[in-house]
Amino acid sequence: MTPSTKPPKIRAILFDFMGTCLNWHASLLPHLPPLPSHPSYPPSLASKIQSDFLLQWRQSYFNTNTLRISHNLPVENIDLTHLSTLETLLLTPAYSSWSPSFTPPIKDSLIQAWHHQIPWPDVLPTLKSLSEEENYELFVHANGSTRLQLDLVKAAGLKGVFEMLFSSQLVGVYKPERESYEWVLRVLGLQPEECVMVAAHTSDLKGARQVGMRTVYVRRWTDDIHDNQEVIRRENDAYLENMRDLEKVIREL
Amino acid sequence: MTPSTKPPKIRAILFDFMGTCLNWHASLLPHLPPLPSHPSYPPSLASKIQSDFLLQWRQSYFNTNTLRISHNLPVENIDLTHLSTLETLLLTPAYSSWSPSFTPPIKDSLIQAWHHQIPWPDVLPTLKSLSEEENYELFVHANGSTRLQLDLVKAAGLKGVFEMLFSSQLVGVYKPERESYEWVLRVLGLQPEECVMVAAHTSDLKGARQVGMRTVYVRRWTDDIHDNQEVIRRENDAYLENMRDLEKVIREL
Repeated sequence: MTPSTKPPKIRAILFDFMGTCLNWHASLLPHLPPLPSHPSYPPSLASKIQSDFLLQWRQSYFNTNTLRISHNLPVENIDLTHLSTLETLLLTPAYSSWSPSFTPPIKDSLIQAWHHQIPWPDVLPTLKSLSEEENYELFVHANGSTRLQLDLVKAAGLKGVFEMLFSSQLVGVYKPERESYEWVLRVLGLQPEECVMVAAHTSDLKGARQVGMRTVYVRRWTDDIHDNQEVIRRENDAYLENMRDLEKVIREL
Repeated sequence: MTPSTKPPKIRAILFDFMGTCLNWHASLLPHLPPLPSHPSYPPSLASKIQSDFLLQWRQSYFNTNTLRISHNLPVENIDLTHLSTLETLLLTPAYSSWSPSFTPPIKDSLIQAWHHQIPWPDVLPTLKSLSEEENYELFVHANGSTRLQLDLVKAAGLKGVFEMLFSSQLVGVYKPERESYEWVLRVLGLQPEECVMVAAHTSDLKGARQVGMRTVYVRRWTDDIHDNQEVIRRENDAYLENMRDLEKVIREL
């Protein structure tokens, strides 16, 4: 059999969702309250403060999950985790003058904004094309609740693309716990080498490699901001700047 | 607000799958081994014997689930339940002369045939149309494994129709246990009155009513063959001979 007629090895493509497929940063930004007026803030600094605030909020969400895993705490509703991490962030001195602008309705709107995100521009064409291929089954495998994922699929125009959504609420443990990947393999009835995990988070891919899945890293400036990209580049089967070449990369795995 | 401008109350439509959406009987029939030759069998009797065999196999699958529920046994892989009920049926005296034709490859092919079923003719147009409506989310809520349901969606041409597939493997308990419906409501984050269960099984709908969901019965000659249809007609919000009017019925719930 020549290489071109070999059946593709990959049968299931598991996507991390927020960050990897969705631009949470651009989606949240319009929901932030205005910064307190301050004569020394040029507009560019104001944007940077708002952007940094979101990046810190996102990081503290990840930190909380890691802490919950290390303390063997059960999976928490992501809306509650987002609220508690927001409240904590607003208590830090850096945000003391901005904090009063976060009224209860603003905070509600920010929590709900996580349910309605826009995809990165390369995502829709790639995922729709992949989902039309007979050989592949596409899944979301991401932390969060099923309601969050259902809302995000609708908001991002991804209806009909995924066969199933595997949330940490369904799985019962967070990624990157080994049990999360093993649960998905059991439920899909597939071998690890038939699955590829696609994520903008090195920790997600580390977990996938531990059970023998293939891995594709997609670089997004909003995520893994403190990680060494050169190390990540070496560790995975592929390292992409966006998803435009994803189909080709997966076919060659 | 006039009735025509009221927003629809129903947000989620939960479908039972085998029997309700899929014609398991017609799908399995071609996989049965030929009957032993017998001078007194006219062809019509041969068809009836084969049909009865399938109806009995299906009934013994339901009986086994009921037994497992009453003994608090965990959910079993449906392929195993299908195999054990097939083996038991073949031991009955009625099938003693036919039984040797069920070789291991034939039995394998029969177990696998449950993964590849054709839909009833009214199903595809109705479900595709419902899934395109902004207001509704469509789900499978059925006993069986996730792999079975993924294979069935593909075989039946229903890809992209359902937001999620809720199998007894995922839920952890069989329908019609109350906990199965409560689990679905919790995961969807919806109120019971926002959900309608559509099934060709009166027991599925009894369970749905117990938690406050709306119910639509769809009559299929292959299922509920021993149940009193007049009683079923009275017990549910709607009783349909097929799914052609389902959209209209759900809009008026």
